Amino acid sequence: MKKIKAGVIGATGYAGFELVRLLLTHPQVEISAVSSVSYEGKRLCEIYPQLTGICDLKLESDEYVTSEEADCDVVFASLPAGHSEPIARRCFDSGKLFIDMGADFRLKDEKDYIEWYKGEYGDKELHEEAVYSIPELHRERLKKARIIANPGCYVTSVCLGLYPVIAAGALDSSSIVIDSKSGATGAGRGLALNTHFPECNEAFSPYKTACHRHTPEIEQVLSEACGKALKVTFVPHLLPANRGIVSTIYCSLKEGYAFSEIRGLYERAYGEEAFVKLLPEGATANIKNVKYSNLCHISLHEDRRTGRLIIVSALDNMVKGAAGQAIQNMNIAMELPEGEGLSYVPPAF
Amino acid sequence: MKKIKAGVIGATGYAGFELVRLLLTHPQVEISAVSSVSYEGKRLCEIYPQLTGICDLKLESDEYVTSEEADCDVVFASLPAGHSEPIARRCFDSGKLFIDMGADFRLKDEKDYIEWYKGEYGDKELHEEAVYSIPELHRERLKKARIIANPGCYVTSVCLGLYPVIAAGALDSSSIVIDSKSGATGAGRGLALNTHFPECNEAFSPYKTACHRHTPEIEQVLSEACGKALKVTFVPHLLPANRGIVSTIYCSLKEGYAFSEIRGLYERAYGEEAFVKLLPEGATANIKNVKYSNLCHISLHEDRRTGRLIIVSALDNMVKGAAGQAIQNMNIAMELPEGEGLSYVPPAF
Amino acid sequence: MKKIKAGVIGATGYAGFELVRLLLTHPQVEISAVSSVSYEGKRLCEIYPQLTGICDLKLESDEYVTSEEADCDVVFASLPAGHSEPIARRCFDSGKLFIDMGADFRLKDEKDYIEWYKGEYGDKELHEEAVYSIPELHRERLKKARIIANPGCYVTSVCLGLYPVIAAGALDSSSIVIDSKSGATGAGRGLALNTHFPECNEAFSPYKTACHRHTPEIEQVLSEACGKALKVTFVPHLLPANRGIVSTIYCSLKEGYAFSEIRGLYERAYGEEAFVKLLPEGATANIKNVKYSNLCHISLHEDRRTGRLIIVSALDNMVKGAAGQAIQNMNIAMELPEGEGLSYVPPAF
Amino acid sequence: MKKIKAGVIGATGYAGFELVRLLLTHPQVEISAVSSVSYEGKRLCEIYPQLTGICDLKLESDEYVTSEEADCDVVFASLPAGHSEPIARRCFDSGKLFIDMGADFRLKDEKDYIEWYKGEYGDKELHEEAVYSIPELHRERLKKARIIANPGCYVTSVCLGLYPVIAAGALDSSSIVIDSKSGATGAGRGLALNTHFPECNEAFSPYKTACHRHTPEIEQVLSEACGKALKVTFVPHLLPANRGIVSTIYCSLKEGYAFSEIRGLYERAYGEEAFVKLLPEGATANIKNVKYSNLCHISLHEDRRTGRLIIVSALDNMVKGAAGQAIQNMNIAMELPEGEGLSYVPPAF
Repeated sequence: MKKIKAGVIGATGYAGFELVRLLLTHPQVEISAVSSVSYEGKRLCEIYPQLTGICDLKLESDEYVTSEEADCDVVFASLPAGHSEPIARRCFDSGKLFIDMGADFRLKDEKDYIEWYKGEYGDKELHEEAVYSIPELHRERLKKARIIANPGCYVTSVCLGLYPVIAAGALDSSSIVIDSKSGATGAGRGLALNTHFPECNEAFSPYKTACHRHTPEIEQVLSEACGKALKVTFVPHLLPANRGIVSTIYCSLKEGYAFSEIRGLYERAYGEEAFVKLLPEGATANIKNVKYSNLCHISLHEDRRTGRLIIVSALDNMVKGAAGQAIQNMNIAMELPEGEGLSYVPPAF
Repeated sequence: MKKIKAGVIGATGYAGFELVRLLLTHPQVEISAVSSVSYEGKRLCEIYPQLTGICDLKLESDEYVTSEEADCDVVFASLPAGHSEPIARRCFDSGKLFIDMGADFRLKDEKDYIEWYKGEYGDKELHEEAVYSIPELHRERLKKARIIANPGCYVTSVCLGLYPVIAAGALDSSSIVIDSKSGATGAGRGLALNTHFPECNEAFSPYKTACHRHTPEIEQVLSEACGKALKVTFVPHLLPANRGIVSTIYCSLKEGYAFSEIRGLYERAYGEEAFVKLLPEGATANIKNVKYSNLCHISLHEDRRTGRLIIVSALDNMVKGAAGQAIQNMNIAMELPEGEGLSYVPPAF
Repeated sequence: MKKIKAGVIGATGYAGFELVRLLLTHPQVEISAVSSVSYEGKRLCEIYPQLTGICDLKLESDEYVTSEEADCDVVFASLPAGHSEPIARRCFDSGKLFIDMGADFRLKDEKDYIEWYKGEYGDKELHEEAVYSIPELHRERLKKARIIANPGCYVTSVCLGLYPVIAAGALDSSSIVIDSKSGATGAGRGLALNTHFPECNEAFSPYKTACHRHTPEIEQVLSEACGKALKVTFVPHLLPANRGIVSTIYCSLKEGYAFSEIRGLYERAYGEEAFVKLLPEGATANIKNVKYSNLCHISLHEDRRTGRLIIVSALDNMVKGAAGQAIQNMNIAMELPEGEGLSYVPPAF
Repeated sequence: MKKIKAGVIGATGYAGFELVRLLLTHPQVEISAVSSVSYEGKRLCEIYPQLTGICDLKLESDEYVTSEEADCDVVFASLPAGHSEPIARRCFDSGKLFIDMGADFRLKDEKDYIEWYKGEYGDKELHEEAVYSIPELHRERLKKARIIANPGCYVTSVCLGLYPVIAAGALDSSSIVIDSKSGATGAGRGLALNTHFPECNEAFSPYKTACHRHTPEIEQVLSEACGKALKVTFVPHLLPANRGIVSTIYCSLKEGYAFSEIRGLYERAYGEEAFVKLLPEGATANIKNVKYSNLCHISLHEDRRTGRLIIVSALDNMVKGAAGQAIQNMNIAMELPEGEGLSYVPPAF
């Protein structure tokens, strides 16, 4: 069988490299071209020595990746906000599937994009074409998708955690408080004082308290799920660990709903899923049990004293929160088995 | 000036040793005796090699520490729940100040103790004598105290964070959600799988979700502060770091209170305090800025979109959350300067 | 094609579980049975929640794993020293390939075993049958092997690093000093104070200085390689990291050999190898570039001022140092492609 | 008693800030002025929030620190190589003690400085005046010192470890191999990829293999101690930890010296020292037992099989390896008690 040819734009950033790494062992994909603004002309293994003797890909320009010569069937881009439109346009016009791992196509409402990203939508047709997909929630949308907006890492963690109970209309939608914690790779490869080892190790703190850009994206997904606009309190924290997100989500059930009914909602929603697992009662989701894999673990807890429902959701921010989910979206859109290339079992340590 | 003679019971546990360590450089204290059930007969420096050539204390029995021979003015105990009563009795009868770093004297209502600690109050007079003290909130109680209940680490973090706004009656008291994260020393020196290095490192998760024993103690302090019974949702998490607690506290102001009034409450409450610092607007409390010190940092944040107040409180669980606060309580009760022996400036890394 | 049926004895220890985890995605293997003394009767996913919804294997007895009912073609054992002989015997007699990940078949000379492991060889025929194999050095031995001794983690790291220059007779064999550093998983899942998180994190030290059990095994491999008995100084250290070994090896070339000739020895030895990579000049081997993979990275350095050769070797102690190498040995012995199931590309973080 | 007035130039770098932090609790010092090129005009607590409400020092220029207005008795500088001479000159001319925590006055032989630091000695008189001091080895030199060269962190660790046996003439001086490991603060506050959290955490590697700038400084101290030029092999490694250096030192005794004599040399050298401790037989030096303190722990080990002596030396790179030792040097030069301000007992975690 002929392999799918993939291109990766922004291959030396953390999410871009993680994608390359996973695609290298995807049985039905070959990487045709990779690009990097910072390292154009170098080989990828010079930047990431783990590829020594394994991969000889040379870093090109993003124009090359979308060119006829590179001949990609699918192009992924992992870029800072504001850079994806022209690439998406070239892919769209030349019939390539485009999967954006950045934020440029995530928000449906341009006003949100203007407010949170300080940018505008230049090429509006593309945004109409774009399909936002957390596969477990939106996979039916992917059938004829040509532009896929791959969700934010926190958003995936939070929305997988809340979807079943929100979609069932069981929540007091004004009650949602989300306390998320992410490993330091979430901040990317760019150097900064708060991710300098001696400042991040043995440290812990919230950041962008109640003003992180993933907030409107969370609200977009959840509002759509419950059919009415809702707002959430969302506070991310920086963990002294490389990978993983845990979201601890606090909320109140609507009058008339009992905690005992909630588990069933999750079993029905995720019982057949390969990557989203509801943990047995008494267990608690933990980064260590999902890291390096495309899994999302969810555990449900009741605060009997206050009546609150507490949902804990854990995933690997770089896999299910970024590169793995992008592959999962590609697999579906390209009609491959959904889990192809994503079978890695999380290590115990 | 004659130094105060101190005894430490349970000196080889983490909180007990931290206390010994701090007392060794307290200018007005000399350690008269230390005890350990597990290591009686050994020298403390055999268990903790950092004391090599610095301290020759030998580990005795707890009876010795409270004996006439040891001649202590103050006895600290750092023991698992259920072991402090007989020691407290001996100290009380012989006129020694007793400071319990464990939980046995923290809960005023025996029913709470029975429910959460599965034990009873045998010697009820002692519980009536016992004074619970987070010094910034309760220092006036310490004047004639003979038995001091030193607060729990999470409790200190949470109650210092909430006190000013709770005491002012500005909060909807049903709205409080507390998401706390603690370094691994909080679990003590006892070996357990979840604090085995490969299981704790690169891991993160809640534990004892909405059922941690510090819950009723938090509620006791806050209920007293606002003059009516309240309940909170409290979820602790285990951080892959040695020390520190961050509590991220979510709550809603009562109708009629504005976020702009809140800062003033904290300035008035803590403006003169040596150890509790309200951070400037825009700053966020972080474990790394308080570790190894007796400081508690507090930052205030508004979620403009949902109207919630978010309070972040950071302290070192072993110092302000345990041994440092015990010394602070002792200093006050013994009429020493409150900060004596506690002037350590937190390291930057 | 019919899959190979594998059994794993000691499947809940760290090396045993890592093996199970890797075998679960090996395209030509199915796991037929697993055992654990501590958890017999439970499902493996109860001990390792990463398997939730992925693997339903139940933990049996070791007798079951070697039974006709389990019908294994190959049995792996990952046990403390002194427990493998009876299992090996049962496998040998019933025609199953036996691969011992423990130490019981590593030392050829029983006197060494007696001295270092305080045990004896009961069933001597088995020891004569046993084949010791670091595949890159010894793969030709595996053709008809029925019992394979899988090497120690440090030994693999050190011997891959030294083999080319030792085998060429280029070293002053009395000059070898090996300073190795291992992540904490090397100490296994058993609880101990030095791997308790607060004692291991932000700590670093040698252990078993010049008396670690891997010493005679290193000497056995190297002595055989150079054709004469040699002794090495070997000091392991415990790293505050989960995985990986770096060995920094110091040695002196014999008169008549120049540093410039050394690189060629390594290129010839490993140029065709899939898993052992000589890094380009100027690069340095690092745990982070091999972790979670079966790779071993080697870098060569000259101390121009003293004339010493410095060899740095990095691998993942749990993969190339244990479970991955066991699979590689199995692949060769069973005439599968050597790298089957071992293609994982190391993550960048 | 009138306090000594101290100035700190380069107060926002890691070593500079650590010095400020320690001086803030030195009972006989008050900080008169601090400077920073990067943050001139800001308050130090804006850069280091641990000082919030504790210290109001404003960052000035280095000229201000050495000015009459600042009126310092002692000036410390913690600067990159090549910047100290003019400051030293101003101090020297105005009768202030100058303590250089950088490298500019460490190497006696200008040729070494030219070779290793690529700079020259402009103001040669200053270099003649400068006194290099690891206090335990050189304290008698400090009596009339006006310029003190504070040693490098690795150098202190290595030379304290080797001095007694080198000075006794008991070593084969060509046999010395030093394998050192340092926490990430050793690389300072400047951002770099190898100290970016996800690249440093769960990573380990040598760096500047056999070409680190501390090499000639080690050789200078040791050559002087034994009375003849010697060369060492020195390889530093970067630890995933904040603080601490462990040096594992391998060497061979000269014919005629027995391991049993060695302990006595160390007992005699360090038996009366407050900060250098020979550990009991069987114990091993570990970063965790010295961190945050001015202590250096040394343990001695024999490799009976090869006859090598193995010396392990552990200290805190920021205290005994930098700021603490600078204070110790100041105390001696200013005729204060040597340990003043340095009594901190290392925490257990």
